[in-house]
Amino acid sequence: MSALHFSRVVIVGVGLIGGSLALALKRAGVAGKVIGVGRSRASLERAQALGVIDEAAPLEVAAKGASLIVLCAPVAQTFALLHALEPHLEPGTIVTDAGSTKSDVIMAAKTALGDKVAQFVPAHPIAGRELNGVEAALAGLYEGKKTVLCPLQENARADVAAVRAMWEAAGADCHVMSAVQHDAVFAAVSHLPHVLSYALVAQVANAEDAALKLDFAGGGFRDFTRIAASSPEMWRDICVANRDALLREIATYQSVLAHLKARIEASDGEGLERVFARASQARLAWGAQRAAAANVEP
Amino acid sequence: MSALHFSRVVIVGVGLIGGSLALALKRAGVAGKVIGVGRSRASLERAQALGVIDEAAPLEVAAKGASLIVLCAPVAQTFALLHALEPHLEPGTIVTDAGSTKSDVIMAAKTALGDKVAQFVPAHPIAGRELNGVEAALAGLYEGKKTVLCPLQENARADVAAVRAMWEAAGADCHVMSAVQHDAVFAAVSHLPHVLSYALVAQVANAEDAALKLDFAGGGFRDFTRIAASSPEMWRDICVANRDALLREIATYQSVLAHLKARIEASDGEGLERVFARASQARLAWGAQRAAAANVEP
Repeated sequence: MSALHFSRVVIVGVGLIGGSLALALKRAGVAGKVIGVGRSRASLERAQALGVIDEAAPLEVAAKGASLIVLCAPVAQTFALLHALEPHLEPGTIVTDAGSTKSDVIMAAKTALGDKVAQFVPAHPIAGRELNGVEAALAGLYEGKKTVLCPLQENARADVAAVRAMWEAAGADCHVMSAVQHDAVFAAVSHLPHVLSYALVAQVANAEDAALKLDFAGGGFRDFTRIAASSPEMWRDICVANRDALLREIATYQSVLAHLKARIEASDGEGLERVFARASQARLAWGAQRAAAANVEP
Repeated sequence: MSALHFSRVVIVGVGLIGGSLALALKRAGVAGKVIGVGRSRASLERAQALGVIDEAAPLEVAAKGASLIVLCAPVAQTFALLHALEPHLEPGTIVTDAGSTKSDVIMAAKTALGDKVAQFVPAHPIAGRELNGVEAALAGLYEGKKTVLCPLQENARADVAAVRAMWEAAGADCHVMSAVQHDAVFAAVSHLPHVLSYALVAQVANAEDAALKLDFAGGGFRDFTRIAASSPEMWRDICVANRDALLREIATYQSVLAHLKARIEASDGEGLERVFARASQARLAWGAQRAAAANVEP
């Protein structure tokens, strides 16, 4: 047994993210019993049959004697889950989450948990697959991936350290930043591109000559719109959850686009090229750095 | 010798596009002598050394006795090239081009060639590689790719048929549409995505916390911004050349984005999901259709 050990781990939402974490903690030998909580009995039964969880239980039962409770359900459910958990949350239990947005999750946690929010350590593992559900869960999903921790002032240092150690046991590299910073970063590099990609596909698909346009769409369109095939429900929730940071990024983007439009209106090739060249250099440098760091596709 | 034969083919601009066409026509046995015209002596010498062209000559010399002249230089040079060609253009010569935009090319051709514009058959092969220059030229570049022809009212049917047959000999599937339709299609599915991708990278790279943001940018950002690594000079020219159609697409995009922004401002998850779901379905259907048709990556 490792020095790090959680005797009773509760995974709330046993899909790709929660299931992969359960498998990773089992593989690392840091989890005793793993209890799954979820809305779908069929899905919990599959998780148990696959050996992802040891048993299934309702949240209030699962919470009894839990060392660690990890929320892996969609972020929109955070308040309801923590509100239901609060009366059953014991003093020795650490609660954490895996949500893609943090300010709203923290707001929900403070409202739902009151003073017990000190036991809640917000986190966001940056990992995913194109597949969903517990069948897609992999013990290695978090290996070499980043996890962001956004500790609260109220958190005990030991609890933050335990959550960090848990993610490290799952193979992730942990980074600490404020929730505001986290939400601004992901609004810019993830949430905004999703909105922009959905918007382009909606525009082309709604055009009178949609069939002709799609017939001539090539590799550039394919890459630009790949993320527009993502789950509409998940991205709806993320957009609403990270509303403020995303609105700021959209407003900035509207200014950048208006600037480029004005350059095109003025047939100002030089002005356009300045922006394009800077972007092109930044993209090439990012790709090269990323490829060098991780030996992945630029 | 094939029934189709161009005894003297002039390629103006012997880079990836022009060089690949020269190689494809030679391989198909439909080209006699291939003459290269270009601004860089070194590049023409390389083209000759690689066997892409048989000889190099200035435009006015190359035009003498030419059966076919193909403009493969950047679209911004169309007027200057045709203006220089006009006094030397013989009645039996067909002129065509490979430009990514068509309305502006036709305008330039009408102004530069006057009555001789009847000899000019506008075309756009939809093919490319991430590499540029004659060294990247491939005889098979156009195989299975689409070429759009935008014939003029002034063109003789036989000349249009000859240009079509030339592209078919190079392996391309030919499609005929009006220049206005062509420019609208490519503004929507190619030029607009490039502008949007450049804009996002410019925004992230110009942010105060650019380094942090780029550090957490993942696979979605990578795919969305791949086209922002494209040549700034080429895309500057295309944006200016296809100004009117592109401005219409940008204006539509601004409306779509403003609509999504308003839905986010109102925390209207249902309204957002409607747009996202329609886009997601359209993108999945497009990917599946494309994969089925060409056995390529969705």
